[in-house]
Amino acid sequence: MFGLMQDWPLLCHRIIDHAATQHAARPVISRSVEGPIHSTTYAEVRTRALKLAQRLDRDGIKPGDRVATMAWNTWRHLEAWYGILGIGAIYHTVNPRLFPDQIAWIVNHAEDRVMMTDLTFLPLLESLADRLPTIERYVVLTDAAHMPATPLKNAVPYEEWIAETDGDFAWKQFDENTAAGMCYTSGTTGNPKGVLYSHRSNVLHAFMASLPDSKGISSRDVVLPVVPLFHANCWSLAFSTPLTGAAMIMPGAKLDGPSVYELMDRYKVTFTAGVPPVWMMLLDHMEKNGLKLPHLKRIVIGGSASPRAMTQTFQDKYGVEVIHAWGMTEMSPLGSLCSMKPEYASLSGDARLDVQVKQGHPPFGVEMKITDDNGKRLPWDGKTFGRLKVRGPAVARRYFKDDTEILDDEGFFDTGDVATMDPQGYMQVTDRSKDVIKSGGEWISSIDLENLAVAHPKVAEAAVIGVQHSKWGERPLLIVVLKKGQTAAKDEILGFMQGKIAKWWLPDDVAFVDEIPHTATGKIQKTALRDRFKDYRLPSAAA
Amino acid sequence: MFGLMQDWPLLCHRIIDHAATQHAARPVISRSVEGPIHSTTYAEVRTRALKLAQRLDRDGIKPGDRVATMAWNTWRHLEAWYGILGIGAIYHTVNPRLFPDQIAWIVNHAEDRVMMTDLTFLPLLESLADRLPTIERYVVLTDAAHMPATPLKNAVPYEEWIAETDGDFAWKQFDENTAAGMCYTSGTTGNPKGVLYSHRSNVLHAFMASLPDSKGISSRDVVLPVVPLFHANCWSLAFSTPLTGAAMIMPGAKLDGPSVYELMDRYKVTFTAGVPPVWMMLLDHMEKNGLKLPHLKRIVIGGSASPRAMTQTFQDKYGVEVIHAWGMTEMSPLGSLCSMKPEYASLSGDARLDVQVKQGHPPFGVEMKITDDNGKRLPWDGKTFGRLKVRGPAVARRYFKDDTEILDDEGFFDTGDVATMDPQGYMQVTDRSKDVIKSGGEWISSIDLENLAVAHPKVAEAAVIGVQHSKWGERPLLIVVLKKGQTAAKDEILGFMQGKIAKWWLPDDVAFVDEIPHTATGKIQKTALRDRFKDYRLPSAAA
Repeated sequence: MFGLMQDWPLLCHRIIDHAATQHAARPVISRSVEGPIHSTTYAEVRTRALKLAQRLDRDGIKPGDRVATMAWNTWRHLEAWYGILGIGAIYHTVNPRLFPDQIAWIVNHAEDRVMMTDLTFLPLLESLADRLPTIERYVVLTDAAHMPATPLKNAVPYEEWIAETDGDFAWKQFDENTAAGMCYTSGTTGNPKGVLYSHRSNVLHAFMASLPDSKGISSRDVVLPVVPLFHANCWSLAFSTPLTGAAMIMPGAKLDGPSVYELMDRYKVTFTAGVPPVWMMLLDHMEKNGLKLPHLKRIVIGGSASPRAMTQTFQDKYGVEVIHAWGMTEMSPLGSLCSMKPEYASLSGDARLDVQVKQGHPPFGVEMKITDDNGKRLPWDGKTFGRLKVRGPAVARRYFKDDTEILDDEGFFDTGDVATMDPQGYMQVTDRSKDVIKSGGEWISSIDLENLAVAHPKVAEAAVIGVQHSKWGERPLLIVVLKKGQTAAKDEILGFMQGKIAKWWLPDDVAFVDEIPHTATGKIQKTALRDRFKDYRLPSAAA
Repeated sequence: MFGLMQDWPLLCHRIIDHAATQHAARPVISRSVEGPIHSTTYAEVRTRALKLAQRLDRDGIKPGDRVATMAWNTWRHLEAWYGILGIGAIYHTVNPRLFPDQIAWIVNHAEDRVMMTDLTFLPLLESLADRLPTIERYVVLTDAAHMPATPLKNAVPYEEWIAETDGDFAWKQFDENTAAGMCYTSGTTGNPKGVLYSHRSNVLHAFMASLPDSKGISSRDVVLPVVPLFHANCWSLAFSTPLTGAAMIMPGAKLDGPSVYELMDRYKVTFTAGVPPVWMMLLDHMEKNGLKLPHLKRIVIGGSASPRAMTQTFQDKYGVEVIHAWGMTEMSPLGSLCSMKPEYASLSGDARLDVQVKQGHPPFGVEMKITDDNGKRLPWDGKTFGRLKVRGPAVARRYFKDDTEILDDEGFFDTGDVATMDPQGYMQVTDRSKDVIKSGGEWISSIDLENLAVAHPKVAEAAVIGVQHSKWGERPLLIVVLKKGQTAAKDEILGFMQGKIAKWWLPDDVAFVDEIPHTATGKIQKTALRDRFKDYRLPSAAA
């Protein structure tokens, strides 16, 4: 028997409808790419998103068509998302920081029909345009006054383009499982893979992300999304901020310390979210100039592990609560947030930081398990680590144009991370599963060894990879870049590590190199290292 | 094109799964009906709910079957909800405070197959049993030691009943639109109507109810649901509390001031929710004994309008934030909560109370409009009042076994309330639509007049009804019960009201009566008054 409740599909554009009705005058303030600060409201964002939707519709963009955006966080980019998805088309965020080859590959794979972009990226796109045959029109997110001459096909300034509509238009209605957005993963191996979010998954994810133990945003918050809209679905901020009615401060193209600080200070930002490098710049700026952020209450740090010292500085020196978060593009993207459950809430000092280096616990709507290579569930003891697998309504079940089965027989997606779960349900990433070293049936975390090695005063960067070993299968090799002008012997480094880890975790050898290769997004490229060291003979290896 | 996200139906039992996994040891503490305090955990609640589900399944309860519960808030009642819905059957909460005839009517209309009940209600059910032919078995929520002799059919103590299972059982899986629960409205006219909640509506409603601007519950909260599970789906607390991982303190049968205070004080309750009469008893007890509740942070007051003085006392004297709430059984039930948007957040004193007497603003997932009798939308100016209509995934579209269309052509449900909406989106109920007085095409709020009349020092209770008038259609008649021993003339009362309301709102006459009739749930029975005064001739009426 079915319930007798209303049929009200979970459509993303209902979120901006809600914001425009219930929080009509709430400010959406942006540092424009042209320079000046721009101020608008949710009501106005919705009105303009509808004009954009009307224009796309008139231009023949159909449900299911992909419209690319390569743009900074501004009100126009936000309008673009809602306008695109509001006619059943798909916003496809393209990360401008990828290698040009990857960008071309992604746009062609997605078959994007329109490219909406900022002035910043015109040179890049002009150099690539020949290789982007599916793009029928470039819409530049600016007005006629700022529009430069460009050879890009059918290029038009955004403001003129949407001005040619009368705004007499209603959102399209459709099934809540309709695709709304797309984002490609920038993996360290192989081609990027497209994750296709649905209206339903985005709305449910926004609910999960807004709960008090997640981001806990209220209408009284002033939210500054430092994380770009083109990065992993913007950590839901484009949805959860209007859903909760918080004000939105958009940093545009300037993510340096002084620029971010200026916005936070001026608009009394209470909540922000972004990756560690941005916070490093902000902290540096504040430190050097003796500045404070009295209004900032909470900061979500994710994308990569939040350094312990950063968490400590934000909390102890600036009185800002740090919420370490973890997720991935395939998870919409939030998987867990390190808010304090009552078991940990009264901890302080080092004991609190010991919890906060963990990636946290999943909200309702994300299920987690850790397993061994055979899929057997492992205990939640905070020590045993295994493959981290996840399930939920905002987790991918397949990639775009790819029939590969990516779920296990219980419907869980393998994150590629290796993690522990503690008895309170807190997850901590210990490694990537392809990087973990499998020695005699036991697993050694390459990340733990790297973190330990870089603590040595002479070490600038370290990477650990598994190298073939006749007896143990694999054994760890430590690859080290020394700080400028430093010299060190292998035993000096290994001696420093000894006693701080289990004896059998100690790397079998140390290789000193001038440079460690990185991906476009700054991750260590272990595949390249494994290639380079594939014939490396460990001193301990008999074979 | 559809998104490529996982198929993860919104099933209510996933909530207790989440709580049992992520908040396994969180306490669920109850004042048992037998007397002693009982303590359990979410993990244990889930384990026992599964045994209950297994037992129902073995007893032949099928998907869609209704299982009645007439019980206080205890861990066993909570287990019953999850156990029943976890096999696709329907928990049907029966309000023991209804008239026996209504209870019999409801149980028969629902065709309940099992009745799960507390020791408290055995005499009532024994007196009714002959009239409840669909009930095949009575399960008494107690253990063998406390089980009295009873003639009720197949009566069995709950603990023995579930002990006869091995617990090797998994939840059933089904469509998220499957019915999960049922609650009858206790209207002032006609037969009660059954509202049939789905798994989807309960889960979505729990998300809405948990947002920071709604109840804002975190895992660090200790929640005491004073509102009974049998009252309007318990204001979502049976779902939103485990969903957020908060601890749960269940008051059992004792809702008097000292008993509620004892639990709040002993278990450091931070959040509670209930109707004004309970808070009156609590405040009275605290006042008389000079007590405080230093841990209590927020209190949701709903069911009927929260008196201004009560809000003020909680806030000013006890430092507890009051959140006035409004909803109805047909809305799962929460429609709006009066948390502070930034426009109002800095108000204090009377200005703050002026906002807090409003019923608040809807979360994402509830849409509101006010209209005139022709369905035309009215402005949100805080003054114009009209019929309040609502739409959303947790709002009823039909009643159980009733084909009557209850939605308008835009899919909105008419709440039967008359309300204003202010420019910030705050709703305030001004009347019931059947009680509003329609005078010359304009509406007069009977509630406003009643509130004003009872402010007169000689008036004990007041009711205002519309009486036929040849010129104006209807004019207000004020019906007054004077305080014991008092006498008053009509002009004395009307003179007191004059100048405090628009001139044309002033009642045309005053009728003094000994008693005003009430419904079982304490509401003024205006139908009876209208019957009694249907031939009343107003002095102003020409005809």
